[in-house]
Amino acid sequence: MTGEEMHALVERLYPICRSITGDGVRRTLEIVGEHLPLDVHEVPTGTPVLDWTVPKEWNIRDAYVKDPSGERVIDFRRLNLHVVGYSVPVHGTYTLEELRPHLHTLPDQPDLVPYRTSYYSETWGFCLSQAALDRMGPGPYEVLIDSTLADGHLTYGEHVVHGASEDEVLISAHVCHPSLANDNLAGIAVAVALAARLESPRLTYRFVFAPGTIGAITWLARNRDRVDRIRAGFTLACAGDAGPLTYKRSRRGDAAVDRVFAHVLSGRPHTILDFTPYGYDERQYCSPGFDLPVGSLTRTPYAGYPEYHTSGDNPDLVRPESLADTLEVLWEAVRVLDRDGRYLNLSPYGEPQLGRRGLYGSLGGRSDTQQAQMAMLWVLNQSDGGHSLLDVAARSGLPFDAVVAAADALEAAGLLKRVGES
Amino acid sequence: MTGEEMHALVERLYPICRSITGDGVRRTLEIVGEHLPLDVHEVPTGTPVLDWTVPKEWNIRDAYVKDPSGERVIDFRRLNLHVVGYSVPVHGTYTLEELRPHLHTLPDQPDLVPYRTSYYSETWGFCLSQAALDRMGPGPYEVLIDSTLADGHLTYGEHVVHGASEDEVLISAHVCHPSLANDNLAGIAVAVALAARLESPRLTYRFVFAPGTIGAITWLARNRDRVDRIRAGFTLACAGDAGPLTYKRSRRGDAAVDRVFAHVLSGRPHTILDFTPYGYDERQYCSPGFDLPVGSLTRTPYAGYPEYHTSGDNPDLVRPESLADTLEVLWEAVRVLDRDGRYLNLSPYGEPQLGRRGLYGSLGGRSDTQQAQMAMLWVLNQSDGGHSLLDVAARSGLPFDAVVAAADALEAAGLLKRVGES
Amino acid sequence: MTGEEMHALVERLYPICRSITGDGVRRTLEIVGEHLPLDVHEVPTGTPVLDWTVPKEWNIRDAYVKDPSGERVIDFRRLNLHVVGYSVPVHGTYTLEELRPHLHTLPDQPDLVPYRTSYYSETWGFCLSQAALDRMGPGPYEVLIDSTLADGHLTYGEHVVHGASEDEVLISAHVCHPSLANDNLAGIAVAVALAARLESPRLTYRFVFAPGTIGAITWLARNRDRVDRIRAGFTLACAGDAGPLTYKRSRRGDAAVDRVFAHVLSGRPHTILDFTPYGYDERQYCSPGFDLPVGSLTRTPYAGYPEYHTSGDNPDLVRPESLADTLEVLWEAVRVLDRDGRYLNLSPYGEPQLGRRGLYGSLGGRSDTQQAQMAMLWVLNQSDGGHSLLDVAARSGLPFDAVVAAADALEAAGLLKRVGES
Repeated sequence: MTGEEMHALVERLYPICRSITGDGVRRTLEIVGEHLPLDVHEVPTGTPVLDWTVPKEWNIRDAYVKDPSGERVIDFRRLNLHVVGYSVPVHGTYTLEELRPHLHTLPDQPDLVPYRTSYYSETWGFCLSQAALDRMGPGPYEVLIDSTLADGHLTYGEHVVHGASEDEVLISAHVCHPSLANDNLAGIAVAVALAARLESPRLTYRFVFAPGTIGAITWLARNRDRVDRIRAGFTLACAGDAGPLTYKRSRRGDAAVDRVFAHVLSGRPHTILDFTPYGYDERQYCSPGFDLPVGSLTRTPYAGYPEYHTSGDNPDLVRPESLADTLEVLWEAVRVLDRDGRYLNLSPYGEPQLGRRGLYGSLGGRSDTQQAQMAMLWVLNQSDGGHSLLDVAARSGLPFDAVVAAADALEAAGLLKRVGES
Repeated sequence: MTGEEMHALVERLYPICRSITGDGVRRTLEIVGEHLPLDVHEVPTGTPVLDWTVPKEWNIRDAYVKDPSGERVIDFRRLNLHVVGYSVPVHGTYTLEELRPHLHTLPDQPDLVPYRTSYYSETWGFCLSQAALDRMGPGPYEVLIDSTLADGHLTYGEHVVHGASEDEVLISAHVCHPSLANDNLAGIAVAVALAARLESPRLTYRFVFAPGTIGAITWLARNRDRVDRIRAGFTLACAGDAGPLTYKRSRRGDAAVDRVFAHVLSGRPHTILDFTPYGYDERQYCSPGFDLPVGSLTRTPYAGYPEYHTSGDNPDLVRPESLADTLEVLWEAVRVLDRDGRYLNLSPYGEPQLGRRGLYGSLGGRSDTQQAQMAMLWVLNQSDGGHSLLDVAARSGLPFDAVVAAADALEAAGLLKRVGES
Repeated sequence: MTGEEMHALVERLYPICRSITGDGVRRTLEIVGEHLPLDVHEVPTGTPVLDWTVPKEWNIRDAYVKDPSGERVIDFRRLNLHVVGYSVPVHGTYTLEELRPHLHTLPDQPDLVPYRTSYYSETWGFCLSQAALDRMGPGPYEVLIDSTLADGHLTYGEHVVHGASEDEVLISAHVCHPSLANDNLAGIAVAVALAARLESPRLTYRFVFAPGTIGAITWLARNRDRVDRIRAGFTLACAGDAGPLTYKRSRRGDAAVDRVFAHVLSGRPHTILDFTPYGYDERQYCSPGFDLPVGSLTRTPYAGYPEYHTSGDNPDLVRPESLADTLEVLWEAVRVLDRDGRYLNLSPYGEPQLGRRGLYGSLGGRSDTQQAQMAMLWVLNQSDGGHSLLDVAARSGLPFDAVVAAADALEAAGLLKRVGES
């Protein structure tokens, strides 16, 4: 998928009113499913998941605040952010004074509508710009939220690209935000594009499209005995703004995925952040009981741009070239993850005679030794089972691809044996 | 105690002629005992203590050098530094030439009287300013040292504030220096003030007031089977000069006490020094057989100011505000030591649902998450038994108090269990 | 040996046509043997050595390219670099066009003759300056290489200085380069001088003079069950140019030899390089099966100067004062290696009473404590069996010699016991 195609997917998903449950998530997964085979899971309300319980399902058809003239001064149909997520149904007449505690604005960003939710405390509310609030008279107003909050299901989707190995790479994108484009329709779009590009990988790649927090917790609860297969992973969000890429390390800090992203981001503008137990679903994957090697890739990080969690996070904020750039870096990271590994030099006493095997130039004395030969010497020297090819690339300063090519040549010559993941 | 009260204690203790044994130490401990209940220990001469033996007890009543006119040109009664500590008795007539090998001066600081001792080699001598020496004629001089060096005792005092735990914090101040104010009457005064301020601590706090070297060695010899209770400790000296605080690390270098002082000193002018096997009684506590987690707190460090071990180290060098500042930092350190600990997250798989327990704001989507909530997430994430609350504060950048409050709230909610000291 | 004497040895060895086998190596070892008792080993062609096989022996008597007038336009007798090492015999008439594929030049350094070899691929060739090539007409030329390539032997020499301990220090210099002075006649000369200077060392010092790569591999193959005695080692090459010293770390990176060279080079201009699996025979010693603690000492490193592997690397490039400087640093390193060790404080509880044993000044109170006393305190404090004397010197900032003297004094007093190598 090109940057433009990913952007078109963002635009198509943008109007849907998603939340942590409900038809918005289902519709989103349907559209993702047009691109990828997707296993869609429905988990009933009330199911215990780790320390949590799957909540009631929330759906909404319409919502508005009408002024005395009957005009919709707040209109869910124009922008679904106008309703606080998980608002319970309401229909009545309110003065502005009565309504005021239910209205949320951003006084410091008076033209933007905030995004607010109340998943676990039953209430209702509207979000609007401070400017719109300032224009509202004393009322009375007709207020309608035509929602349902009832037993139902939590929905998430999985797409798996099976590799030769059962060792897995986890890519996790949250699908619970309503009309917010960079966070996280851009992440969904790049994940879809990455999945489409994977063909016959060595590792197995598992893409999880799930609502934030409760979705990741539900997935973890249902996959507890599988998570030890995860060799690397990352959450993917805010993948399309104009900022440089940001990688946030896993809780471990030095997991393979952390070293891989440090490697592929070096040489381009980027930021690397230490782990914090806040942000996206790496919070759950990196909880101490799991402590999975899962980092987080974004462009501008969580809560780091002024339009974050506001109506300003619309498709205009997302750039096709940024989506394409995120995809390229991910592709590079995936290639390294997929190809990395630890090897054992099968002729570890002295250097093996490479020339006899056609692996070495025959004319000695020259000082401009080829990169390919240096890569072979480095791989042979470091392959004691304790260093990965990425370690060799990092220590030698050679390109990862040159190191891989050397390992391939040496393995073909019977001088090297793969012994494990990186 | 205020800075002024501590300074008054320094002034009261200043005239007493202390040494490693004798009535000067006893009188000093009596005065300390007016502020604190003190166990005073008397250890007989000849008692083997580690590699050493308790020496003879030294006492002195008077000493002088009288010129031919009968004037005391060197007079112990004016300043007890004038006599070399542990000088044997002498009474006779000496020309200046005969006396000269027994006279100690500081030619580079001609107006100051040096402090000298000869504990383990029987001799006698006088200390005086170079200026005074220059004024001395050829003599003859009447010389008197009315001292006794005989079997007796070594005296030290202990004050213990018992806590809920038998784990101990050791605070050690030397009490063997005669009229020297910053080194170490200031240390004694701050230790007294700190002890007075401790009420119902969690840990047990043991204050040792003992002569340097032989006193610490005697205490160690008599407490060999107790020292493994010591979780942290420090020697306290030079606590009242105008310089910034200096913490010298324990031999281990990364003991809890080292991390605590690095934490409480950050954000104010200070110096942190690596361990050296010289200085105060950390030398003994950190000998390799004990290797206790004992650092050293001073303002200007050991031998680091021009008045060190001279008559210039008098009460004028000690400032009430410096004494108060030392006490505040110690108090902060003690609070952290007392409150730190390692915890285990009892719900380590995913984040526990804090909202259900009233520990989390109910309105989602906001990016200005409260410090208290961040502190809870950090404590939960890091509480795998391997990280202390101070570690959490350091990694998160959150105030230690916020981390403690989070741990308390989580423990009260049944989500956290204390598992050990830091 | 003085710098001038080492330089004279370089000049004497310079004209000999060495290769990885043959009479040039034998003659070189004969001359070395005039300075040192040398065990000369002859290993027959065809002997398997690790992954390699000892090759045929190559010898050469004469070689030239004569122009139509009969003048030797390329003449082996003037400079043995003119013939590609291991060239097979040839005698015939060639036009320049036919000869051209057998001619090697350095177009970027048009006045220098390159050094080329073809040990493991049978061919022949000449090396000449680009300027000389440019002067050659179309021919025809009479071409002669009067060489033999036949079953014979590989030759290497060993000189061992036996110490009280069987633990060994390996010093390895390659002896296979023809008329190249800095690389490696300078290394040979400094090794000879170092060996001559060693008298009754504690460790055993083994000097290996062997052809590069195949010689080191042969030595390793024949000494597999001895290499675990090697406590430290280094290859020695390029020991006489005007550049500052360069130490390249062993593969381990923190072996004793690495710390020793870091110590002795500090305080003078120098470079320390991380290990790379290229360069001199540290490649073989540091192959992962052996992983010996062997670094490499040079002045300007491998391939780092423009005259490297050209006719410009002649005795004029080698300076007597550089040879002498390399020797001095090596001597310092050897002294540290020989004298370093780990000790155990036999009186580890508190400080032992040094004064009673005559090891400590008797007059207390002075702040200008002597270096010797500080060294004793440091050695006592750190001697828990885990720190070497070099570690103590590094941590304390004291000179290594002061630390050694302290250890000697403490050992003599029964306070310290040697427990192992550094």
